[in-house]
Amino acid sequence: MSDLGTIGEDKLIALITAQSPLRDNVLIGPGDDCAVLKNANRDDYTLLKTDSIIEGVHYLPSADPYWVGWKAAARVVSDFAAMAGTPDAIVIALSLKKETAVSYVTDLYRGIHACAEAYAFSVVGGETSCSSQNMLTVSGTGKCTTPITRSAAQAGHALYLTGKIGGSIQGKHLTFTPRVDEAQWLVKHTTLSAMMDLSDGLAKDLPRLAKLSNVGYDVDLATLPLNDGCSIKNGISDGEDYELLLACACELTPQQLIQWSEAFPEVQLTKIGHCTTGSRTELTGGWEHFTTDSDD
Amino acid sequence: MSDLGTIGEDKLIALITAQSPLRDNVLIGPGDDCAVLKNANRDDYTLLKTDSIIEGVHYLPSADPYWVGWKAAARVVSDFAAMAGTPDAIVIALSLKKETAVSYVTDLYRGIHACAEAYAFSVVGGETSCSSQNMLTVSGTGKCTTPITRSAAQAGHALYLTGKIGGSIQGKHLTFTPRVDEAQWLVKHTTLSAMMDLSDGLAKDLPRLAKLSNVGYDVDLATLPLNDGCSIKNGISDGEDYELLLACACELTPQQLIQWSEAFPEVQLTKIGHCTTGSRTELTGGWEHFTTDSDD
Repeated sequence: MSDLGTIGEDKLIALITAQSPLRDNVLIGPGDDCAVLKNANRDDYTLLKTDSIIEGVHYLPSADPYWVGWKAAARVVSDFAAMAGTPDAIVIALSLKKETAVSYVTDLYRGIHACAEAYAFSVVGGETSCSSQNMLTVSGTGKCTTPITRSAAQAGHALYLTGKIGGSIQGKHLTFTPRVDEAQWLVKHTTLSAMMDLSDGLAKDLPRLAKLSNVGYDVDLATLPLNDGCSIKNGISDGEDYELLLACACELTPQQLIQWSEAFPEVQLTKIGHCTTGSRTELTGGWEHFTTDSDD
Repeated sequence: MSDLGTIGEDKLIALITAQSPLRDNVLIGPGDDCAVLKNANRDDYTLLKTDSIIEGVHYLPSADPYWVGWKAAARVVSDFAAMAGTPDAIVIALSLKKETAVSYVTDLYRGIHACAEAYAFSVVGGETSCSSQNMLTVSGTGKCTTPITRSAAQAGHALYLTGKIGGSIQGKHLTFTPRVDEAQWLVKHTTLSAMMDLSDGLAKDLPRLAKLSNVGYDVDLATLPLNDGCSIKNGISDGEDYELLLACACELTPQQLIQWSEAFPEVQLTKIGHCTTGSRTELTGGWEHFTTDSDD
């Protein structure tokens, strides 16, 4: 009898989502950054997402609780951004050891509330329970007029990254900035065809987007926008970048790139390659195993 | 420095919800059975809820995983029912020990999906993570045209219960039937003013409704609809009944009661008392301490 330690997450998810009951108002079900629900008699959509962070896995016991709270909320905001949506309201299920200091919890909430103020959403409820392991599950709704999925990139579409990648363990994995405004700009000003946020690193996430879009990719590793002190290996494998990976049907014109840099002077937008036919994947720039794990 | 073990859940929740950022579209924030969000340009509402169940707290390791899954989903459905709403879509955050059998997880999902079929909602995503304690957090959206809160009962309003109470530990706490159709009937056919679902037992939950409505109550314990083999103490203290407690401005007429029993022949609707002015609470029928804990 197989257990969760041997089957692996991807197979497990395939198993349990195969039979998901989906009603007529579901535009996008399991498998993308968020679920997307049609709204009756309206031309916009409701996004729905849940996401957990666990002490010892997603943050250390010594991490500042303010930034733990920020991270828990911002991860969900980043998923809304990845659909070209905006957050609306969240609820929080907190599981905490009973010896947790009350001040730790109020600091967690200061971080959650700071994220809510920064991204203009509400914190409308939740629940707390005592458990043997500290964990925060943030769930919420977002809004979207033109949902951008992972599955509509086509051969020839150009691939871009927002910001820089690699080295998030130095602190960015807690303090990152979800790219909500950037995604809104992209959906309005470009021929954006597919998008996702980078949570597991480009080496794992790009193949996921490519697989769902049924395309290959050709990436020039020499173009990757790396954080200071990061190797290409760090850049593609460290994970938790929370930057946007996106495909555009047409390359951005010089004028569009100038407009971008005026709108977001501190966030670069970098072309890293393009989508190809079939499952062909090519990498130039010297990295041997694109899909390497960060620990090999 | 106080910790969670000493401050207690009610004080903690008061502390962390006092500063909740609430935007203009929030009709009901923290503190009721669900949050209620206004929909732009429409006269209906979106409900939002999150709820966790933890192995060893809400179910035993030996419990049938099908019913554990059912319970995790049905608790959220019951909260939607308590606002006179219906479920729309849920997402599931699963935290499981890595030695958990894959068949256990697929059985959990059979129960979740059965609940989705029974109550016509979608299961649109989620995530799984490995942890040291098994836990399911179900979050989701519901729909509602006339939200019924806990806070609008007034002195003189009659108090009713659906179904029977007590003894849920015998199995009903896993296999219960959320009262969605019953709540829809009540909001349509009666002068329903306030409602909640009974999760912690009448002795704890009625004072919560009364406090939020700023009323007292007078309950005749001799009228309580008890499950077979249950004492009054069981009835008011066992908890996990998942029945509806409701207030109506006018008592139901004999004709309304007949209509109810035709619509729901297997679910009785019992008048147990009425709301009073101020915080006056009276109990007739012989029970000494209404707010007793189940373990005293």
